[in-house]
Formats: sequence, structure tokens, C-alpha cells
Amino acid sequence: MNSRVNRQILLDSRPTREPTAANFKLVETPVTEPGPGQVLVRNHYLSLDPYMRGRMGEQKSYAKPQPVGEVMIGGTVGQVVASRAPELAVGDFVTGMGGWQEYHLADAVMIRKIDTRSVPITAYLGPAGMPGVTAWYGLNEIIAPKAGETVVVSAASGAVGSVVGQLAKARGARVVGIAGGPDKCRYVTEELGFDACLDHRSYSDAAAMVAALGAACPTGIDGCFENVGGIGLDAVLARANPFARIALCGLIAGYNGRPIPISFPQLLLVMRIKLQGFIVSDHMEMWPKALAELAALVGSGRLKYRETIAQGLEAAPGAFLGLLNGQNFGKQLVKLIP
Amino acid sequence: MNSRVNRQILLDSRPTREPTAANFKLVETPVTEPGPGQVLVRNHYLSLDPYMRGRMGEQKSYAKPQPVGEVMIGGTVGQVVASRAPELAVGDFVTGMGGWQEYHLADAVMIRKIDTRSVPITAYLGPAGMPGVTAWYGLNEIIAPKAGETVVVSAASGAVGSVVGQLAKARGARVVGIAGGPDKCRYVTEELGFDACLDHRSYSDAAAMVAALGAACPTGIDGCFENVGGIGLDAVLARANPFARIALCGLIAGYNGRPIPISFPQLLLVMRIKLQGFIVSDHMEMWPKALAELAALVGSGRLKYRETIAQGLEAAPGAFLGLLNGQNFGKQLVKLIP
Repeated sequence: MNSRVNRQILLDSRPTREPTAANFKLVETPVTEPGPGQVLVRNHYLSLDPYMRGRMGEQKSYAKPQPVGEVMIGGTVGQVVASRAPELAVGDFVTGMGGWQEYHLADAVMIRKIDTRSVPITAYLGPAGMPGVTAWYGLNEIIAPKAGETVVVSAASGAVGSVVGQLAKARGARVVGIAGGPDKCRYVTEELGFDACLDHRSYSDAAAMVAALGAACPTGIDGCFENVGGIGLDAVLARANPFARIALCGLIAGYNGRPIPISFPQLLLVMRIKLQGFIVSDHMEMWPKALAELAALVGSGRLKYRETIAQGLEAAPGAFLGLLNGQNFGKQLVKLIP
Repeated sequence: MNSRVNRQILLDSRPTREPTAANFKLVETPVTEPGPGQVLVRNHYLSLDPYMRGRMGEQKSYAKPQPVGEVMIGGTVGQVVASRAPELAVGDFVTGMGGWQEYHLADAVMIRKIDTRSVPITAYLGPAGMPGVTAWYGLNEIIAPKAGETVVVSAASGAVGSVVGQLAKARGARVVGIAGGPDKCRYVTEELGFDACLDHRSYSDAAAMVAALGAACPTGIDGCFENVGGIGLDAVLARANPFARIALCGLIAGYNGRPIPISFPQLLLVMRIKLQGFIVSDHMEMWPKALAELAALVGSGRLKYRETIAQGLEAAPGAFLGLLNGQNFGKQLVKLIP
């Protein structure tokens, strides 16, 4: 076992604006054996998520920046291959923050055993994992739509947005997605069951988007799950009803430094809108309940999802850069085993 | 009594950007006698408030626009001079939406009898009236500061801001005001007891304001009662702590059409900030409790306030235009009796 090699991807430098492959470095290090209370996990899948872009920079953020020269952080699922922790046995499937690497030496208390009998292993990085809980929290705890209300979801075909929309439909809301391109829009309406979906690439300016959103939301907008920001958020505000709730989950339009002002905050006042930023890791007390609900929905097939899977650790940087530009379709994963 | 003349100020035209005196017209009409269930009120004081600017325009707002050719709306206090309502007698002091006029023919159910023995009559248009309840609601129901937290209040010397700060001090918060000019700042700290006050006119740009706000709020900002918007709000966001709450009450910086974008909505996300627009008339269920508390504080002298009183109905347009430019000091009133 000591001869095993761990391939890892490090943050090699911080991007100034748009990150490139040169910001990452692939290295090989020897695998370390677990100490008392630890396990060695062979990572099977790595999750790629937009929040990682924030960690690459030095700017003020909710978490300390990813240190340069260290393994990129990231959620993983994998299998225990060596254990010195009584609660985890070799062969157990687990999820945790295993990072962009093939092996993960973990304190057993920092990872969670998962049941892969009715829920596919990759779903623990998607609808039955952090993205699912993010959707669940923002929809249920911030937007809380009533039946008949209209909810807009940006990045609607993505790992989070796809869950938001399906949960909102289950609550009886009219759900309108915003996504990039006709294929994603078709998937959102035909497979996920959204009532409508706008292709944000098809609008020349904010006014055109406002008009289209108005047509898709004939009774106005009562809730919005915002993953993108920029003119999409401006358009939502322009069509928001009194007492609308906006769960601010991401602002991917601005992640590379592009200005994304909220142009008319007057609308927040006039319409008495609640705009609330949130991060799902602040609400760990909600995770058990949310995960139980989400796993049951995935297991029974009522919660649909889609994955884009890149093959091999070395594909991770390219897949991540693609994610930031919307090239993924659904949850972006990297498969770390052959 | 039929020979009495009612002087009234009408909205004569809508302003395009900054309103002028030409948007108003003074007219004289005969006073009408009350019908059954009605009273005739001689208005003693008219309240001038920033919200009136919104009513003058045709843009989307929370209330329907003030019709052109009709009496300008506004809160008033006055005295019943004729009554055909059993619950109100000649001589009773009342408050209501009497408008920019000397006499107000009112349905008795639309006005409220007030007790002027321990609370001065004008306070019912200020700390013991709508501005006070506005402050009370935003502070207690949205910001809800804990002892030791820091609360920033813009338009700090005004009718609303002055109450916000004093209520926040009573809850044990550190309170930092933002006001226009050294006299107002001195009043805010020396008389109202705020811990610090920034003169927004003394900063050349947003960066200078951020630096000054940072110095005045060494542990960051946990709550903000926003009446102004623009670079002041941007500066607050730049110094906000995680989970800060912003009660968005007014955006006077943008009332005449000047753009006042929120430049970095990323901060709302990263700091998980709640930004909530509100209008006090949505929360009538809170008024009795709030008014009782506020009247008690005014009556006992624990809630300080300041008034600027213009003399005579014909002075109302000029006083209102001055209010929009911050020329008032504290609550702007118009005295309608000699």
C-alpha cells in the first residue's frame, strides 16, 4: 500500500480575472497511511462547483481563500480503502471534502457514510448533497412559495437550479427557468417540468429580457432563486410583485470581475422585496432533514437530475473552466477512477 | 360657517426630474359642511415627508400616483370645528391624512383622536406618528440589533433616522449616523446620543466614505437603516459583517432620477446579508403597540426630536423642495394656523 501514488491538483497561482488552466498544477505525492481515527479514501468522483472560483481569489469572501500550493478543495464521494476508525470499514462508501485528488486521508468524523443502494453514488454530490440542500434551503426557508405564486430560477438546468424548480413545482408554484441555450431550456421544461424557460443568450439587452420575463410571468414574480446576477436579476426586479423574496445563492455573472450592479434598488423598496444572501454551510442544522427528503425524492425517481462527467483528475481544470462558462449540462463531476 | 374658504395646494403638473414650485398650485374653494358620520377639521400642522416625491410621479410605486389637479396628500394634525359623528366633538384634536389644505372634511373613521396633554400636537406627525412607527418597525422587526452590535442610520437627524438611532441606543447597540453637514452631525451625537456621525458631504468619493465608516465602526456593521441609498449604501455594504440586516426605508438620493445602483451585490451574498424594503403602512397591526411605546417615550422626554416649521400653507411647496435637498433639520412641518 505504501507504494500507492496520490495524484493531486494544486492551486498554483491566483487568477486575476478569468482563471486559466495555468492556475492549476498536477502533482504526484506518496499516499500516507491513516493514523488513529483516520481512514484512507479512494475518491471516485469529484464535484465541481461555482463557489470554488471565489476560493481561488484573495478577495473578501465567506471562507478563507484556498491557499496557493495546496490541494484544491472540493466535495467528493469515494470508498474507504484503509481504516483505523471503528465506525468505518474498508469498502464503505463515504462523502466528504476530499479535494481535487485521487486519495483522501480523512479524520473519520469529517466524512459521512452514504447508502448507495437506492441513491446513486454521484447523487450525493448533486441533488442528495450540497447542491440539493442549497436548493432546499433557499426555496423553503427564504422563498417559501405558496401554491399559485410564480418563482423564477436562474441557472435552471444546473445542479442547484434544477432541484429548486422541481421542489417549487411540488409546492404548487408556477416555475420559470432562465438557462443558457435552447437545449438546456428544452430540458428544463420538457424533462424537469418547469412551466417555461428563457434562454438568456437570446436577449440583446435588459429591456428585451424584461419583456420576455414579463410574458412568461403574467401575474408577476413572487420568488426568485438567483444563481447568476447581472441583467437577469435586474429583469426579475422589474417584474417582481410586492413582497417578493429573492434567495441570493450565487452571482456567477460577476465571478471574474465583471461589474454586475443592481441597477434599480428603488424596486426593492417600492415592492418591499426581501433579498437575502445565504450559504448553505451556515445552516448545518437543516442538513439532516433536507438530505432525508432529497434522498427519498431521488430514490423514488421524483427528483430528476442530469450530470456531465469528465474523465480523470487531469480533466478537472478544464471542466471547471467550462462550468464557469456554462458549458456543463447539469451537475459537473469528474470521475477519478477508470 | 358656509362663508369659510379652504385654501388648498394641488398637484398642478408632474415633475420630470427635480420638482419645482411650478408643479404646485394654490387654490381657494368653499368649505363644505360635514355630512352624517363626518367631521370638519381645521388643520393646524401639515407633515412634509420624502414619500410625497414618489406620489408626484407616474412611475411604478407602492401607491397609486397622486392625481394631477387634486389636493396633495399629506398627514395632518388639527382640531374638529364641526361634527356629525358621535365619537368626535368640536374641539377634539385629531390626526389623519388631511392633505395640503387648511380644512379637511373627513369621515370620522378615517381620523384618530389624539391626546395632547403629555405629547405635543406636532409629535403626532413625528416621533409619535408615522415617522416614529417607521423607525420602530424597521429597527425592531428587520434589524433587531443585539446589545453590542453596530447599527448605521442614514439621514440620521431626520424625523425617522433620529428615532431609529435613539431606539437602537436603548437596545444597547453602537449607533453611527450619516447626516448632511457638521451642524446635523453635532446634533446627532451631542443631543441624540449617537456614538458617531459621518458628514456625507465631506467625502470626495465612495472610497473615502468606506474608510471613514470603517473607522467609525471598528467591529463592522451589523444593521443599517437606509433612507438615502447611493454611495452611502455601497459604503455600508463594504463594511457589513456576516448576517447584517438592512432595513430599506427610503432612497432619497435617487428620487429625482439620479442612478443609484448597488455597485457590488456580491457583498450581499458573501456576507449573507438580508436587505429588506418595507413600508410602514403595510404593517398597520403594529401601529397601536408602536405608537403607545413612542408616545410614552416622547411624553417622558426620553425620545428627543427636532422640528423645522414653515409658516403658512403657501410655504409648503418651498419647504418640501428644501426637504428633498436636506435643507430641513429634523421633522419638516408647515404650520397652517396663524
